[in-house]
Amino acid sequence: MHPTLDTLDTPAAIIDVARMQHNIDRMQQRMNALGVRFRPHVKTSKCMPVVRAQLDAGAQGITVSTLLEAEHFFAEGVTDILYAVGMAAHRLPHALALRRRGCHLKILTDSVASAEAIAKFGRASGEAFEVMIEIDTDGHRSGIAPEDAVLLEVGRALHDGGMRLAGVLTHAGSSYELDTAEALAALAEQERAGCVRAAERLRAAHLPCPVVSIGSTPTALSAATLDGVTEVRAGVYVLFDLVMHNVGVCTTDDIALSVLTTVIGHQNTKGWAIVDAGWMAMSRDRGTQKQRRDYGYGQVCTMAGTVLPGYVLSGANQEHGIVSREGEPDADIAMHLPIGTRLRILPNHACATGAQFPEYRALSEDGELAAWARFHGW
Amino acid sequence: MHPTLDTLDTPAAIIDVARMQHNIDRMQQRMNALGVRFRPHVKTSKCMPVVRAQLDAGAQGITVSTLLEAEHFFAEGVTDILYAVGMAAHRLPHALALRRRGCHLKILTDSVASAEAIAKFGRASGEAFEVMIEIDTDGHRSGIAPEDAVLLEVGRALHDGGMRLAGVLTHAGSSYELDTAEALAALAEQERAGCVRAAERLRAAHLPCPVVSIGSTPTALSAATLDGVTEVRAGVYVLFDLVMHNVGVCTTDDIALSVLTTVIGHQNTKGWAIVDAGWMAMSRDRGTQKQRRDYGYGQVCTMAGTVLPGYVLSGANQEHGIVSREGEPDADIAMHLPIGTRLRILPNHACATGAQFPEYRALSEDGELAAWARFHGW
Repeated sequence: MHPTLDTLDTPAAIIDVARMQHNIDRMQQRMNALGVRFRPHVKTSKCMPVVRAQLDAGAQGITVSTLLEAEHFFAEGVTDILYAVGMAAHRLPHALALRRRGCHLKILTDSVASAEAIAKFGRASGEAFEVMIEIDTDGHRSGIAPEDAVLLEVGRALHDGGMRLAGVLTHAGSSYELDTAEALAALAEQERAGCVRAAERLRAAHLPCPVVSIGSTPTALSAATLDGVTEVRAGVYVLFDLVMHNVGVCTTDDIALSVLTTVIGHQNTKGWAIVDAGWMAMSRDRGTQKQRRDYGYGQVCTMAGTVLPGYVLSGANQEHGIVSREGEPDADIAMHLPIGTRLRILPNHACATGAQFPEYRALSEDGELAAWARFHGW
Repeated sequence: MHPTLDTLDTPAAIIDVARMQHNIDRMQQRMNALGVRFRPHVKTSKCMPVVRAQLDAGAQGITVSTLLEAEHFFAEGVTDILYAVGMAAHRLPHALALRRRGCHLKILTDSVASAEAIAKFGRASGEAFEVMIEIDTDGHRSGIAPEDAVLLEVGRALHDGGMRLAGVLTHAGSSYELDTAEALAALAEQERAGCVRAAERLRAAHLPCPVVSIGSTPTALSAATLDGVTEVRAGVYVLFDLVMHNVGVCTTDDIALSVLTTVIGHQNTKGWAIVDAGWMAMSRDRGTQKQRRDYGYGQVCTMAGTVLPGYVLSGANQEHGIVSREGEPDADIAMHLPIGTRLRILPNHACATGAQFPEYRALSEDGELAAWARFHGW
């Protein structure tokens, strides 16, 4: 007997397939209209059926955050893979092995020391690695500022060292901290302009720079133009979450991931229902804590997926969650949500919540639930 | 070639076996001196070699937070298992199957509705489940207050319904919010007295109550006496973490879990070293955020395990962490921690960090690293 939302063991990570497909189509159509290639970041799902839907919609290649992701998706037939974390020298043999097996793996650097290590290893092994230079356009993490002299030093270390300088890459991750259309559009333009400027500086120094790759979900959905950009990357848009809702780039009805849970008890005087989705299921991500609206560990919905306004997962232990109403406690919560009631919780952060589960359950519009495996670790 | 800390891929979850054994011995000796059975909570490690060391030291039975844990450890030969999360009716067939295969599984309830569901299912299947009643001694989560009339109703629903009333259980989880020896000792006494009182009320009503089970790591290490208690449970003591250090029940030198990571870049003007341990490795747990000392996402140590005072993992993206010095930025961080440097990060919460990894690497005093599998999901 196939499980249904009524019979599936809980907690379980549910993907609403229609919502996911809507999110994929929305982004791909936008990228097509802006005239750029789209390379989704698959760290969000780590799940082949999700990535297959992204590729089928028109994505060209994928972005990964670990070489295990590269291994898994290469084994599934994806050959155009960008590893978008600064290359550690000890991982070069693994990257080489992937390339020798036919994977068009691109790697990343943002320092002369790392570029020289890549070039040295590449020459010693007879491999001209395709290398992107990471650009810092918003100060939130890694990368070289567009005007920094080091940019050309890194470019020369790679190019003169015999590697293929594949282009420049930036990620305006600080977009997660914004929540107005104006601020998002301004950051999207800053991300675009900074990355294009870095490419122009490399080209002016007679260094190759075919690819100009930018992206984050909020900026990808906010850019007015992408002049000079060849490729956009985004990850969480495929499922969306409450953080993205607070940023302002999706509605709660777009959120395709939820955690199915069962009410296992109550504390009536406090207005609590205890559920079997704690932080092991939701993750410890509290990404909405500093945003315009704090959802605790998630927004509570009915089993059918309808938001229960004001009910949030206000607390979480390892395998216990506390559902409560914001403001005045619900003294009748045991009547409203009796023991055995099934609920679905929208997560703060789809990447973190998904990682807590060995598989998603993909819910089709006809109520069928398919098991979609995802992988874990490094 | 066996990996060493120098060659292992990063990030990796390292267990210092000598520290773990010290923690196990400390707790077991304390429980022996207090004259109670000790039933460790294995949700912390989900790893058989860790549990084997706990049992070898004298633990009697285990506590689990999911039936998957029960399945795994029963398959490894552990038969005395307490499932310490309120029983959901849809899981009763699974519990029954475990018992029919020879597992002495004990289950838990804190409501008349749940007790009646257990008794009804048990009678229908000819199984007298061993059931504990959950007692609330500190208001932090589930359970029935010791003086609540519902306690006797639940006891009668089980006993008169043909189930075996195995005892009472409480967990003073609010101990994680304390940080003085006096407050911890007071809460430990409150936990003991409340649970013993519940047992006395059941017995006075001519209901059986052989087991009085209490525990949390902080209270187990703080109780002066355990009169009337038969069994103590604790979990995180086996590895410890920065939250427990802030609570005051361990030193940083007792913390047996760390995440091995590699420096992959810098932002010199900010005094940042970028490492390959982000929140996917550390978890999103920020348990020290509201404690006496906030360690960000973790305390930075050398590869050999020596604390680097003032250096913390101040930020985390999915696969990137930011190492920085508290207070004045370290403008020479690229010299102090050059690219390729390996560090070990002590986690806020050992249960959450361990769950991010498919295996631990167990580091012996001779430098050998063994792979210790742990399991994932439900």
